[in-house]
Order: sequence, then structure tokens, then C-alpha cells
Amino acid sequence: MQYLYETIFYSKEVNELFSNEAIIAAMLRFESALAKAQAKHNIIPVSAAELIVKCCSIEKIDIEHLIKEAGNGGNINIPLVRQLTSVVKKQNDQASGYVHFGATSQDVIDTALIIQLHSAVQLIATDLEQIIKQLISLTKEHRTTIMIGRSFLQHARPITFGFKTAGWLDALLRSKQAIRNLLKENFVLQLGGAVGTLSAMNEKGLLVGETMCLELGLDLPAKPWHTQRDRLAMIATSLGILSGNVGKIAKDISLLSQTEIAEVMEGWKKGKGGSSAMPHKKNPVGCISILSNAERIPGLVSTMLSSMVQDHERATGAWHAEWQTVTDIVQLVAGSVNKAVEVMGGLEVNKEQMLRNLEITRGLIYAENVSLALAPLIGKAEAHELLEQCSSESVSKNVHLKDLCMKHPVISKSLKPGEIEKLFDHTLSLGICDVFIDRVLNKNFSS
Amino acid sequence: MQYLYETIFYSKEVNELFSNEAIIAAMLRFESALAKAQAKHNIIPVSAAELIVKCCSIEKIDIEHLIKEAGNGGNINIPLVRQLTSVVKKQNDQASGYVHFGATSQDVIDTALIIQLHSAVQLIATDLEQIIKQLISLTKEHRTTIMIGRSFLQHARPITFGFKTAGWLDALLRSKQAIRNLLKENFVLQLGGAVGTLSAMNEKGLLVGETMCLELGLDLPAKPWHTQRDRLAMIATSLGILSGNVGKIAKDISLLSQTEIAEVMEGWKKGKGGSSAMPHKKNPVGCISILSNAERIPGLVSTMLSSMVQDHERATGAWHAEWQTVTDIVQLVAGSVNKAVEVMGGLEVNKEQMLRNLEITRGLIYAENVSLALAPLIGKAEAHELLEQCSSESVSKNVHLKDLCMKHPVISKSLKPGEIEKLFDHTLSLGICDVFIDRVLNKNFSS
Amino acid sequence: MQYLYETIFYSKEVNELFSNEAIIAAMLRFESALAKAQAKHNIIPVSAAELIVKCCSIEKIDIEHLIKEAGNGGNINIPLVRQLTSVVKKQNDQASGYVHFGATSQDVIDTALIIQLHSAVQLIATDLEQIIKQLISLTKEHRTTIMIGRSFLQHARPITFGFKTAGWLDALLRSKQAIRNLLKENFVLQLGGAVGTLSAMNEKGLLVGETMCLELGLDLPAKPWHTQRDRLAMIATSLGILSGNVGKIAKDISLLSQTEIAEVMEGWKKGKGGSSAMPHKKNPVGCISILSNAERIPGLVSTMLSSMVQDHERATGAWHAEWQTVTDIVQLVAGSVNKAVEVMGGLEVNKEQMLRNLEITRGLIYAENVSLALAPLIGKAEAHELLEQCSSESVSKNVHLKDLCMKHPVISKSLKPGEIEKLFDHTLSLGICDVFIDRVLNKNFSS
Amino acid sequence: MQYLYETIFYSKEVNELFSNEAIIAAMLRFESALAKAQAKHNIIPVSAAELIVKCCSIEKIDIEHLIKEAGNGGNINIPLVRQLTSVVKKQNDQASGYVHFGATSQDVIDTALIIQLHSAVQLIATDLEQIIKQLISLTKEHRTTIMIGRSFLQHARPITFGFKTAGWLDALLRSKQAIRNLLKENFVLQLGGAVGTLSAMNEKGLLVGETMCLELGLDLPAKPWHTQRDRLAMIATSLGILSGNVGKIAKDISLLSQTEIAEVMEGWKKGKGGSSAMPHKKNPVGCISILSNAERIPGLVSTMLSSMVQDHERATGAWHAEWQTVTDIVQLVAGSVNKAVEVMGGLEVNKEQMLRNLEITRGLIYAENVSLALAPLIGKAEAHELLEQCSSESVSKNVHLKDLCMKHPVISKSLKPGEIEKLFDHTLSLGICDVFIDRVLNKNFSS
Repeated sequence: MQYLYETIFYSKEVNELFSNEAIIAAMLRFESALAKAQAKHNIIPVSAAELIVKCCSIEKIDIEHLIKEAGNGGNINIPLVRQLTSVVKKQNDQASGYVHFGATSQDVIDTALIIQLHSAVQLIATDLEQIIKQLISLTKEHRTTIMIGRSFLQHARPITFGFKTAGWLDALLRSKQAIRNLLKENFVLQLGGAVGTLSAMNEKGLLVGETMCLELGLDLPAKPWHTQRDRLAMIATSLGILSGNVGKIAKDISLLSQTEIAEVMEGWKKGKGGSSAMPHKKNPVGCISILSNAERIPGLVSTMLSSMVQDHERATGAWHAEWQTVTDIVQLVAGSVNKAVEVMGGLEVNKEQMLRNLEITRGLIYAENVSLALAPLIGKAEAHELLEQCSSESVSKNVHLKDLCMKHPVISKSLKPGEIEKLFDHTLSLGICDVFIDRVLNKNFSS
Repeated sequence: MQYLYETIFYSKEVNELFSNEAIIAAMLRFESALAKAQAKHNIIPVSAAELIVKCCSIEKIDIEHLIKEAGNGGNINIPLVRQLTSVVKKQNDQASGYVHFGATSQDVIDTALIIQLHSAVQLIATDLEQIIKQLISLTKEHRTTIMIGRSFLQHARPITFGFKTAGWLDALLRSKQAIRNLLKENFVLQLGGAVGTLSAMNEKGLLVGETMCLELGLDLPAKPWHTQRDRLAMIATSLGILSGNVGKIAKDISLLSQTEIAEVMEGWKKGKGGSSAMPHKKNPVGCISILSNAERIPGLVSTMLSSMVQDHERATGAWHAEWQTVTDIVQLVAGSVNKAVEVMGGLEVNKEQMLRNLEITRGLIYAENVSLALAPLIGKAEAHELLEQCSSESVSKNVHLKDLCMKHPVISKSLKPGEIEKLFDHTLSLGICDVFIDRVLNKNFSS
Repeated sequence: MQYLYETIFYSKEVNELFSNEAIIAAMLRFESALAKAQAKHNIIPVSAAELIVKCCSIEKIDIEHLIKEAGNGGNINIPLVRQLTSVVKKQNDQASGYVHFGATSQDVIDTALIIQLHSAVQLIATDLEQIIKQLISLTKEHRTTIMIGRSFLQHARPITFGFKTAGWLDALLRSKQAIRNLLKENFVLQLGGAVGTLSAMNEKGLLVGETMCLELGLDLPAKPWHTQRDRLAMIATSLGILSGNVGKIAKDISLLSQTEIAEVMEGWKKGKGGSSAMPHKKNPVGCISILSNAERIPGLVSTMLSSMVQDHERATGAWHAEWQTVTDIVQLVAGSVNKAVEVMGGLEVNKEQMLRNLEITRGLIYAENVSLALAPLIGKAEAHELLEQCSSESVSKNVHLKDLCMKHPVISKSLKPGEIEKLFDHTLSLGICDVFIDRVLNKNFSS
Repeated sequence: MQYLYETIFYSKEVNELFSNEAIIAAMLRFESALAKAQAKHNIIPVSAAELIVKCCSIEKIDIEHLIKEAGNGGNINIPLVRQLTSVVKKQNDQASGYVHFGATSQDVIDTALIIQLHSAVQLIATDLEQIIKQLISLTKEHRTTIMIGRSFLQHARPITFGFKTAGWLDALLRSKQAIRNLLKENFVLQLGGAVGTLSAMNEKGLLVGETMCLELGLDLPAKPWHTQRDRLAMIATSLGILSGNVGKIAKDISLLSQTEIAEVMEGWKKGKGGSSAMPHKKNPVGCISILSNAERIPGLVSTMLSSMVQDHERATGAWHAEWQTVTDIVQLVAGSVNKAVEVMGGLEVNKEQMLRNLEITRGLIYAENVSLALAPLIGKAEAHELLEQCSSESVSKNVHLKDLCMKHPVISKSLKPGEIEKLFDHTLSLGICDVFIDRVLNKNFSS
């Protein structure tokens, strides 16, 4: 059963990857792969390995008992090995001597964690790919959907909604590349024994590692990494950046869906986003989850970084601090991309409202156009100051800036009415929006 | 069933306070108290309230279903209210109209969280009181147990073990006071309705709040605090500081139990602190858990602080970010004080080893004594530099510094042999250790 | 000269408290107070003390040289003591032997830091007091200024602007109390010598400490606190919470001053908040600084917490990590309260716009009123669902919800027109706004 | 003049890259490159551009005045553009209209920051390369220098010092690759104008960008990135991971140089690492700075991640939060690698002490060897338990474990004396140390 709070923020599918059963199953996969590989390289008898492999099954483990012992002893692997050994022993006394042979708890726990993270990051990559597709569509569809661009929460100048989504897309394309690189290099086996020297195996320890990697779908590191944790930190930070990129999108959507702005809206379906008090409410619940996750992840990432400073060959606490932290990060990010797929899929874009909002300032957003047109004629600073004054007047008198400009002695002397008219045409105020959109769209095809 | 990782770091008792069942039970306590209070103040019929109170029972709730709906809708309260309403309705249609009357989801969720945190912090306070008792004993017992004081991990000058534990105690006494203040002021009801005005009740809304506080053992705030989260932040930071104080103790103990130092040792019992690979290992597992928790808490606290910046009357994500974060903090701190009670209870102090270690530097730790004695005679800077040289010579030649001083032309001319002898007597090097110990011990009695 | 970036975020006055000159001056105050106290208690000759006190003057220090040596040696106190000693020595060889007598670098650096922080927190308290006064005025003035309350960035139900500012005030009154407590207990002398035992002084060490406290305006701790850093953490977290409380205000104001909402505006003056490109822009620059600071402080606080885990009698790095971190925190918070005074002082509140915005949803914000009125008549769930439908219809058909209700078969059968009319009157939708406002205002008088 | 605290933690060279003068100079480089490029593409007159370029000189700027205005207005670019415009205007009124033409403050500030970060990261890369060379030497030199491996601060099993340094090296080789990737992709021009559309230039805006990139040595992004901050976050996290990797090394060295362990020592030179109180102290000051920096960086990185969630086209505070934060990160990391070069260069390795420490446990570290040898003969669990007992006995009776084993009824029956002897030979207990060392060393050659 999921944890109540987690249902809001996690992805169900990824959450299951980190259940008690899944953790233990991943640990058993390690033990099974170890025995198999050791048999292949003549470190333990083939028959012992076969029995161990057969016994490495979650059904044979008493999880409640394991949990109790873990709590008492401060280690989740030792009671598992004890149970596994005893299961094997019941069938063959001697074979039980080869369970977990030459490995240390951290080998098992780290490798199991890597296996779980690997699956989770692959699921995240799939959702990310989906969001990217959705954003490509949105960008193409809204390439010319004009809206106001905003700086410091104030109306600035026009953009298009496609230009905005191209910005979201641009960042996610970089995250896609980052996750791709992540999957290439950071999911490696842990196998070192007590201090990383594989001293309890013979000279074929490395071959055992290679064989296990094939079995588990992991890469073989140059050496064990019991206290060199930069790969885990890399996973954490790459996901942290992805969360930031997705959080920025949710921030924009939640702001754009404010009652007064109402330019976009999360798609609506029965039973989602309502209020227990107010029947009219349609809250941006997808964005809320994403924003909440984005709020939590940075602190968790900082823990992954600070816990890199580990002592000697196996760390006194800093290692332990990683388990739930990196697990939380990956689950929160999985939740965020999951919600983002949903949000993108249902996004309602209100073009008319975007046009209406453009007019709210009565032309103030074109003040820069006029200022730039005047600059070569009356000096730049003068033009800037002149338009600051006209802007104030437009506000205080509730008059459209264009009308003010038409009648202004200096401006009307410098610019013809037709020129002034053009300066207030939003379709002529978009700069090279289109060029930038194409550059982003082409980037994806070439990557 | 506990989550596997959590067994190592959490307190079992506090962990249970935050189970799915416990969360829902706390939410039902809110709904029950609300109905009761509203009946008392004639806002809803007494008979309806009685039925609602009766139905507010965890057994009547389909938790699996609730979890599923929470995941879909992004809110853990709405599906609960829906179930509760339907349970009531089966018995009395009209009464069901008074379920959750005039309240909003955040009222329920915040108050439930506060109830749970309240219980948890009280349990933490109990463990803290126990650690303080243990430290008072240790301080008295080891008031004169001489050991080396260390700065920057280097031998500095002698202290006593009781002086060290008095430092631990001194900090925990401040935390005790902080937790006591915390319990006085920060556990308050949340009751405001949609935007905090209690508009759906009549003018007796405040009386409802007062009555609910009596029922729930909470305080009544000046006004609802839907987006004023400093009290939660206060809980988080006070616990964060406690974690730091306990972490410092675990740091010292783990360092003192290094194989080469071996001055103290966590008590040993079968099945605790062993290694899956190495039969001889006795790891400081209590300290490891405490240190791991101390590594994780600061990042979580930073999230509680950053999520204080909430928008308008109910926040878009920042509120949601608090739930698991503050819950994690309180559980980790509960785990840490729990482990600390165990560690303190079993602590083995090796006085002989402490004395042996004092001699490792062959008298170097008394270099300052000689320097201070020489300063008025030959100048302070000269004395300091002279002792720097003698210290180097003592190391390079493997000669005790006292012997060097006795034979040194300048020193032996300035100080008599008996004087030099005294400068190397550790019982004479403890300054006002004792005065400081008493000041700390007395502080507790007066608090 | 200030650092360019800092000008935007810091308070100039507090920034000067942490200049190189100010740091050194504070360290010299320690050395001077130490000598004076030691002379008083016959630990060093009065004449030596008098000379030392005279030489403890920033003019006598070659700061550039000090900085160079600090960089090489990794300690900012040792080169200062060296210079001071040499200044004294030039006038009296013997007296120079009593400079910094029996103290350690950390005694000087910690005490100097505490002196600086003390001054800074007092300045922060003054600004906070000013903000509180401003908020009391605003609350009284706008007690009945009706505006929409917003949850999840959506219109929810009406509140008054005075109710909103009462919420801000409520939180700041708690921070005021917290800062007051802070000033009472946490600014203590550091004086312990090498390992905290004051071994280099005689039995009168404690008297020296007491005398220094009188001189420096600090409190005497139970014992030295070289590696017990909870007081510093307390300063950091209390200020972090204050920053969150102020940040929440800036968040609200920045959102309320969005072009589309325009309900409040930071006061405007020439040369502030303009844009280099857009002459019409009036950015909420005060809020921007506050929000930027609020973004940065939580990470810094987390460092103060994690660095509490210090080793033995003097810590290997964790102590050093505090200096710039706590200094940054205090400067950022000082900057934030400073900006807040300015923002509050100039705040422009647009009541008409608030009323206009209330009408944007065409009555949807009163859906809950209707739902609550219907609940006892047709069942609560039914009423809620009915209003969900009407709300959707109101939006899709662009019809005021009141008109819809008047004509709705079920609603018009259950409620009379006059009753419906009243449900849409905002002055009747404010609940006990006023009661809560009074509770907050009275709280201040009683505190 | 450097800031006093910073001298200990920053690199002097990188610190200078971020002085007020350097910031302004970088901003002027932007303005100069902009004018040049706009002239080339016929957007502004060549003569105006030539004059602007000539005036873009730090000598012409009144920095004190700029700082004052920045503080008042909340923007560091506007007063600079004002001064530059006025300087140009004095020589040619019309040309002044083309200063900062079509750009926005964030274009200047971001690009200037990127230029500064670019230089800083290149310096960091150089120091990192140097550490890597030093570690390769150390690894080769100490390939067979036997020492104890430690887990949870307890003696575990033997390794070699070269194996330990190979671990440090392995991680830094990954950081080297990461920094190399960073330098390839993340240092891009910012040029977008008010909302990123370059609307104030004509259709040749992109060509202007390309030309500026050539001039400034930066890459051209697909589109402006005013609120897509993942590249900055990438710089921050990559440096954060590097800091963790270097911090781990400093942790090990500081622990190994503890008085009781004394296996390695930071090289010693006059005026470094001394104590103001204790003449004999030789503190690991290089490691202390690195550890202090490693303590501070994670919180700063978390701020860079949380500030990624930026609103619309230009962010309200989150952008501003980056400036000092990323600057601090890069300076701290530069300081850390700088110190690490120094520490590595002077590292003193005490082989004899390493051998002495190996013997401290009287053979306990070989308990696993015996256990593994017994496992196939008496069962693994039995063997493990037997050795747990023998280990306890060895400790309590102060007898070497080998002697105990020789006499133990079960063990001596299972293993011959010669076999037992071999199990306690450390040169036979190193596993495939050598293989792992070679894998790491070869990795560098191939990269």
C-alpha cells in the first residue's frame, strides 16, 4: 500500500520500484548474480551456485522478521544474508557457505540501489521524451499565438506562446541529453568486499565483476567506489536540474492560469483539482505537485553533495544518509515528469484572452518601440525619459499611449502618424521569435 | 509494516504516529471535534454531530480506496470527507450535510499534522530528558577522568572526560529549554475555512475554535495561519538544532572509538554493529545512525524555510512541500534521540587508554605550559618560537619534550628542574575544568 | 567600498559592521578587554594592560599585510596578534609578553563575531519594529477594504486587505518575540583557551570572563562553547524564519502588483525599478531584493545546521564554515527588513481595482455560499455538485452565477430571490475577519 | 583589497576575477562587442560603434558613484549604461543613442557573469589537472605501501596507500571529464532584449549574436535563456561534485594525520598551521579550508537549483539570487583545488607508522581470512561466529589472534599451522589492489 502523502507527489510506477519487496528482490538479484559468476569462474562449486540462485527468491524471505532485525542491528543486508543462508542450508549445508561469498554489505546495498535507480531513471526518460513531443506540438501549433511577455511579473513586450514553449523545450532537450549521458556512464556494479580489494576472492575477482555486469545490465567501474560517490551525486544533480526545468514550466502555467490572467488552464476532469469548500474551484493540481516537488528536491540534492565527504574505505554515516535521500529525489522527479505529461496533454490555451490581456496597459508595452524610433532623432536618453513621462501620463489619465504619442508635440514632430501606428502593431513587435523557435525545433531533430 | 530503510534511522514509536492509519485517524479527530463544537455552539444540530462523531472512526474508512482517489485528485482530504459523508448518509441523509461544515481541506490536514507532531515532539522530549540524565551521571562519574583535548584532530592539552560530557550536556540543556518553549507556543489549531475568515460559520466561529482546542489539546492562534508557516518552521529548526547537538556527540564518540584511539566504545550486544564480511568488527552503529540523520536534516530544514514564502491565502505548492519534509525531520530527530539514549546507556569508557594516549606525543602537549612560563622571562614571541623548535626536535629525535627542556641551555637557565617537572604534570594542567563542570550541572537544577 | 552585487541585497549600515576594519576592530576589542580584565584580577601587570589597551587600535594595524599573512597561514587571528605584539613591544618589551595571554584564536574570532552579530541583530530588530508599526497602520486603515482572497492562485472568497496585512503582522509579531529572546540569551563571550579549560590563566579565569562581559556587553556562558554551536545556529534559524515571514509579504505584494491584478504597487520614485530597455516599466524592486534574499537564506541556514557536527574541542573545518555563512545570513536579513520598511512605507493600495477584480469571475466566488445554503435543504454532496455544474455553466456561457441561480429550477425552488441576492453580497461574506484582525492587533499591545 | 575571511578559503587569482573592477570590465566587454557587431551588420553606424568601443574602458567609469546608484535602484547595469552613455555623449551626441542598443540589463549581466565564470572554471581545470598529475605520481610511488583499510572508522583489512590514492584519482578523473564537458557546452552568450525576441534589432539580430560570440569566446545558444537556467545550475552542480571529490580527499588526510594515527601529514612550512596558544601544533590547515568549503557548497548549490523555478520571461528575484551564489561556489571550489595542489605537493607519507598501525589489533583484521578459509570446512555461519568469539577473546586477553587460532581446537584441527601463518600475512591479503590501480591509471591515458 502506498504511503498517503506520497500518492500526491510520486509516480505510482516508480514508487513500486522502491517498495520493501523491490529492495529485497534487487538485493537477491545481486546475491544470485554473484553466485552464478563465481561458479562460472570456479570460485565456488557450480552446484552450490545453482542452489543459491534458486533460493534467491523474494517468496522465501520473511520480510517482517527481516525488518525487525534490520532495526535492531542497523544494517539491512546482514539479516537478509542470514535468512538466505539458512534457506540454502536447509537444502544443502555446504552450499550455504558460499552465500554472499567475499562480498560486503555495501556491495549488495549499493548494487541493489543502482539497479533500482537504473529502472527509475529509464522510466523518467520515457516520460521526458513524451513531454518533449508534446512541447514540439505545442510550439508548432502556437508559433504565431501572440501574447504578452512578462518581466518581473509586469507586462513587458509581446512574444508568442510558441516562443514561450520553445524556451521550455530548449531546456528539456538539454535535460534529455543529460539523462542520456547519465544512463551511459553512472550505473555501475559495486563489488569490492570489505575494503574494495576483493581480497576474499582470488585473482579472478575482476572476471566475476564482468560477468555480473552482463547479468545485471550494469557497467563495470574502474574500481569499487565505496567512498567515491560522485556518480550518485551526478544522478541526483542531473535529476535536480530536470526538476528545475519542469518546475519552471509549472511556475509559468500556474501563473498564467491565475483567475485574472486565465491564458492557459490545466485540462479539467471530474475529481481533480476541486476544493472541499468551494464548488467553483479548478485548481492547477498538476502544477502544484510539480512545484511542491521542485521545492523539496534542492535540499535533498544538497544532502547528496554534502554526504560525498566520506571517510576512508567505508563511511561512518554519510553513506547511510544517501539511501532515502536519493530514493526520494528519483521518486519526486518521476512524479514531476509524470504530472507534466498529464498537464501538457490537457493544456487549454485561450488565444482570445491572450489578445485581451495584451491591451490591458493601453499600449504601454510599445513604449520601447517609440523610444527606439525616437533615439536616433532626439538622443537615446532623452527618448527613454520622454517615454517614461508619457507612460506615466497614459496611466494617470487612462489614455492609450498611441493617442498620447500622436498628439505629443515632440513625438508627432519626429514621427509620422503611419510610423507611430506601426510602432503599436504587435505582429511587428516580435523580433526574431520565429528564428529562435526554428533553432530549438531543429536542435531536437539533429540530436 | 515499516519501510525497510526507515528501520535504521527512525524511532519505531514515532514512526507509527505517521502511518496511513494514524494520519487518517488524526484527520477524523478534527472532523469529530469540529462537529461536536459546532453542535455545542448551535451551528449544526446536536443529533447530526453525535452521528458524525460516531462515524469518525478509522474502521469505517476504506484506506486503499482513499489512497487511490488521493493520487488522482491531488488532495488527501477530499476523498476522506467524501467517504465520511457517505458513511453518515447511510444512517441519516440530512446529518451528512453537516460533515466538514465550513472547514477547508487545509484546516483538516494542518490540524492533523499538528496533532501528530505534538505527540512526536513530546516523545522526543522524553528521550531528551533521559539523555540529559545519562549525561549528568557520566559528567559526575568522569569529572576527573583525564584525557587529551583535541583541536583540529591534533592533540592539544588535557581535559577530563567529564568536562567533555559537560559540554554535550550544556548544549542539550539549551535544547531542552527550546523544546519546552516549542511545546508551549507552536501547536495550534488550524481553522479558517476557504480563506481564513470562517465565513461559512456564523459569528460563533471563534467559539468553535476554542472548544475544539480544548478537545484536541491544542492552542488557539490569534488567527488562521494557512500561509504564515513560521510555527512549523520553528518546530523544524528547533529539532534541527537538537539534531546538531546530538550529532556533535555522535561525532565525538565515533572518533574516540577509532581503533587507534579506543577511548570510548558503544556498548556491545549480539547482533548489533557486526559486519557481513568481517567477524571482528564492532561498528559504532548507534552513532552511524545519528550521524546519518544529522547529515540529512539540514537540507530538509532548508526546505521548510524556503517553503515559508507562500502565496496569498493558500499556497500553490509550498504548503504541500511541508508534509513529508517536516514529517521526515521529526522522525529522524526522534530516531536520533532514541539511538542516543541507547548509546549513552551502554557507553564504555576506557580510562587506561585515555592515559596511554596522553603520552603519545612525548610531552608536546605541555609545550604551551613551558612557553607561558618562559614568556615573562624571555618575551612571549621568543618563548613561543623556542617551543616550536623544541617541539620539532622532540619529534625528529624521538625524545620526550621534558627531557629536552631540562637540557636546553635557555630553558634550563630560566626554569628550575622542579618547575619544569610541574609544567608536565597533567593534573596541574586542567585549568578551571571543575568550575565549568559545576556551572553546567547547576544550570540544570535551576532550570 | 561595497561589493557591487551586495549593494542590491544588503543593508549598507549592517554591511559596514562586517568590513575588514570592523572585524579587526572587534578582535582588538577582545584583546583590549582581556588585558584589562586580567590586570584587574592580577593575572598580568596593570602597566602592561594599559599599554596593550592603548595599542589595541585599528590605526596601528597594517591591514594589507595582515590579509596577506592570513591567506598564507589559514588563520586571521595569528597575524593580528603578531602585529599587536610587535606594536606593544616597540614601547615595552616585557609588556608584549602579556598580549593575548592565555587565550586561543577561536576565543578572539568567536567573540568578535558575536559582537558584530549583536550589533547587526539590534539593527534588524529596529527595522522590524518599524515594519510592525507600518503594518498596524495598514491593518487599521484597510480593515474594511474588500478584496478577493486567493487560494492556489485562483479566486476563492472575499477578504479585506486589512485581514491580509493582519496575517503578515501576526507572523512578524512572533518574529519580534523570537528576536527579543535571541538578544536575551545567545550573545555570549567565548573565552576558554586552547581546549576550553582556561588552563593558561589561574583559578581566576572565570572572574576574567565576567569582567570582560561587562566591558563588551555580552553574557557569560556556563562554559566555553568552541564546539557547541547551537547558539549560532539559533541566531541563523531565527533570522531565517524572519526572512521567510518577510519573504511571504514580498511574495504577496509582487503577485498583487502584476499588471493584470494591480491591486497594490510599491511606491515609485525616480531612478528606482526602471528598465534599461523599456521606459514604461515599474518593477517591484524592493520585493525582488527581499525575494532574492529569501531564496538564498535557507541554503545558508542548512550549512549552519550541518556545521554543528563539530569534532572534539575545536573543529576541523566546520567552525571555519560558519564565518561567512552566518555573516551572509545576517546581512541578507538586514537587507530584507530594510527593503521592507521602504516597501511598506510607500505601498500604494488601489481599492477600486480590488473591487473590480472581485467581479472578474461573475459571482463564482460565492458558489460556496449558495452551496452551504442549499446543503441542509438538498444534501451537502448534492449541493456541492450542483454548484460545480452551475459554475461550469457560468463560465462557458459567460453568465453571472447569481443570474443562473435565480433561474435554476432546483435552486430557485429552495431559496428565495432575496436570499440568493444576499448570498452574493461581499460585505456579508467576510466571516469573522474583524474578530481575527482585533486579536492580532491586541496581541501586540499585550506583548 | 581582499575580504579578510575570503583569504582563507578563496583562490586569490580567481577572487580577482570577481572584483568590482572585473565585473564592470566584463560588462563593458559586452557593450563593446555589441556595438562592434551591430556596426558590422549595419544596425548602427560604424563611427558610433568605434566611439562606443573606445569609451568602454574601466578607467572612464566612476565606480563609487555606480555602486551608490546600484544600491538605490536595484540594478547594477542601468547606472553603468547611464555613465557610458554620458561618456560617449560628451564626444558625440548622436553616437550616444547607440549605446546598449536593443539589449536589456540581463543580457549584459548574464553575459558578463558567463565571461567571468568561464575564466574561473578554466583556472579550476588547470589546478585539477595538476592534482591529477600529483595523484598519479603518488599512486605509482605507493602502489605497494601497505596500510590498514578502515570501515566505519574501525580497522578492517589491509590495502595499500596507492590503492587509496587511486580511489581519489578515479573520482577526480571523472570530475576532469565533467569539467571538460562543462567547458564545451555551457558558456553561452545572453542576447535577447526585453523578452528574448531581439525585437529592438532587425532581422539581423542573430548575426549580431554570432559575431559577439566570436569576439567574446562564447558559444551561441539556440535561443536566449533569461529564465532557463539549467546551464548555470550545471556549472554549479559540476563544481559541487568536484568539491565533494576533493573534500573526500581532505577528509581522509585530516583523519590520517590525527596524532594517534599519524600516517600522513600535510607538508609543513613556517607560518602555516600553527596555533596562537600551542607552540607544538601543526594543524592540517589546507584540509581545513577544503573541508570548510565542502561544508558550504552544498547549501549554495541547492539555492542554484531552487532558483531555477523562474517566472515568465524574466524572473522576480530568483535570477538575482544566482549572482552571489554561483560566484561563491566557483570561488570556493577554486580555493579548494588550489589548496589541494598545495596539500598534495607537500604530503608526507609515513610508511613505518602505517606498518605499526596495522599491528594494533593484534591480528583481528585477518579474522575474515580465517573465517573464509574455515567456511567450506565447518560452514560459513559457524565460521563467522567462531571468529567473532575468537576476536572478542583476543581483545579481552590481549593475545594475538594468530596465536589464539593456532591453539584453538576447531581451527587448529581444520587448518595447518603454515596455512594459518599465511592467512595473517598482509602481503597476501591485498586481493586485486594492483589490478584496480592499473585500471585507474590506464583510464587517464585513454581519456
